[in-house]
Amino acid sequence: MKNTELFLTAVNQEIEHIEYPVSPKELYDPIAYILALGGKRIRPLLTLMGANIFSEYPLESMPAAMAVEVFHNFTLLHDDVMDKADIRRGKPTVHKKWNENAAILSGDAMLILAYQFLAKVDPLKLPQLLPLFSKTAVEVCEGQQFDMEFESRMDVTVDEYMEMIRLKTAVLLGCALKLGALHGGADLKDADLLYEYGESIGLAFQLKDDLLDVYGDVAKFGKNIGGDIVSNKKTFLLINALQKADGELKRDLDAWIAKQTFDREEKITAVRKIYDQLHLKELSEERMKYYYDKAIHSLDQMSVGADKTKDLRELAFQLMFRES
Amino acid sequence: MKNTELFLTAVNQEIEHIEYPVSPKELYDPIAYILALGGKRIRPLLTLMGANIFSEYPLESMPAAMAVEVFHNFTLLHDDVMDKADIRRGKPTVHKKWNENAAILSGDAMLILAYQFLAKVDPLKLPQLLPLFSKTAVEVCEGQQFDMEFESRMDVTVDEYMEMIRLKTAVLLGCALKLGALHGGADLKDADLLYEYGESIGLAFQLKDDLLDVYGDVAKFGKNIGGDIVSNKKTFLLINALQKADGELKRDLDAWIAKQTFDREEKITAVRKIYDQLHLKELSEERMKYYYDKAIHSLDQMSVGADKTKDLRELAFQLMFRES
Repeated sequence: MKNTELFLTAVNQEIEHIEYPVSPKELYDPIAYILALGGKRIRPLLTLMGANIFSEYPLESMPAAMAVEVFHNFTLLHDDVMDKADIRRGKPTVHKKWNENAAILSGDAMLILAYQFLAKVDPLKLPQLLPLFSKTAVEVCEGQQFDMEFESRMDVTVDEYMEMIRLKTAVLLGCALKLGALHGGADLKDADLLYEYGESIGLAFQLKDDLLDVYGDVAKFGKNIGGDIVSNKKTFLLINALQKADGELKRDLDAWIAKQTFDREEKITAVRKIYDQLHLKELSEERMKYYYDKAIHSLDQMSVGADKTKDLRELAFQLMFRES
Repeated sequence: MKNTELFLTAVNQEIEHIEYPVSPKELYDPIAYILALGGKRIRPLLTLMGANIFSEYPLESMPAAMAVEVFHNFTLLHDDVMDKADIRRGKPTVHKKWNENAAILSGDAMLILAYQFLAKVDPLKLPQLLPLFSKTAVEVCEGQQFDMEFESRMDVTVDEYMEMIRLKTAVLLGCALKLGALHGGADLKDADLLYEYGESIGLAFQLKDDLLDVYGDVAKFGKNIGGDIVSNKKTFLLINALQKADGELKRDLDAWIAKQTFDREEKITAVRKIYDQLHLKELSEERMKYYYDKAIHSLDQMSVGADKTKDLRELAFQLMFRES
């Protein structure tokens, strides 16, 4: 994974070296703050990895990589306002540290900043990359809208849920790869196969996240295990449970969902037991395996040798078996 | 003004014919709603008028015109959230009619939609237009940030105020014209002169707005006359008054600003009288005249005949002497 480490270093350097205007501080400080919070930087890495398959100079695709990472962080900033979240990556969210207006306006400026990065790509490639980026950006907004609507609905289907996470999470991974591939010189067929790969690992990634919340190791996962259960978040697990449970199990589940006051650990243990009885861990893992296989199949269909996509194959594997 | 009417019809048709995805409704309905509220459509008109000077086919610049108009309405949508405004063009604001999250997220989608329109311009022109559009968009955010900061400051200078309205209002008018000019085939010098013209009429436009709030005719202006006075809004008039008043006049002004409960009409009459004694109407009009002359001077320096800029000369005149 030598390339990946090199790319990660380059991305982090690029983020550190963004030059913000000195004024107005309250507009630019929140942008620098959220970008410095870190994260896996998986999206810009995918862009550079996509470019690396086709180009000897993958770092020339850095503007596209930065566009994707800045856009992703913009969505986190505005999502945190909408979800009234207090903590992001262990630190206060922007609207908590500053205020809601600062979070809205800095987010707006950040979305524009993402486009400013994208505008720095090869001008000959720009007319192809810009519509892809915008289409994806709108889809991510659609995903966030569905996610918010699902909070107040008890009849969300598994298909609706998968479509929501496809929009909210998976398409941006596909877009990140496709931008890099096209900028690196791929033909449309290969670029589309990489997009499909990205979409598939994005879906698998979210299913794994849902699983880790319930079955993860506290020490390794870091986040509060069981948070989704406590808040009745409509995850792949809860949606399936609501659909499959009947009789006493269904009454139990409904009761736990309805309870306003409860012991946190007691609820987590009880709901996990319901999930166990319905074999939802296995169901999730099967579904993840399906997307993993789909992702690898997309890579297999590409016109390049398997060695060229070695890093992406490893990445898919790691995402499947990660514990954090 | 035949051209202008034709352009206005074309812009309104274009807005009516935007095809929104059917779902999620709560994401797209607010966008259609705010765009249908109307307004003068001055910005897209400027783009088409800019193109018309240099091109036989000005309507080919419609995508740029739409980008500017959609962007402008996006700023209204988010500004209304930040300013907690209830009414926009006589109708409930988006966050009132739907909710705050819908307003934030629909605004985000609208900003992306603006870029989607811009991406439809001539691909050969795109690398020149995109950075101009983004630079302007960031400046508008900076202007909004300064505007919010000025609310809690009593020491705002006239220069700071003019810079704020330059960013918040004027640069987008300049940008609208320059986008059209460049897309229509202007050289950079002419395009920059049109930008300067736009910036100047933008500044004059805002000064006129400040004046109309205090001295306008209720029947003609439509909005609530005196709204700025009631809310102590830092306008060109109030900032100058705070600077120029002394002795009893200053004590009077400070008292009216500090009052928490008061008769609306009494406050308006009293503050207007202070403005009168300081001759601020004349001062405003002089300043407006300065920007009007500057705007006309920019047009005079262009490489095209004065007949080509006849519509823009008329427009500047109309903005100066408008009563609504």
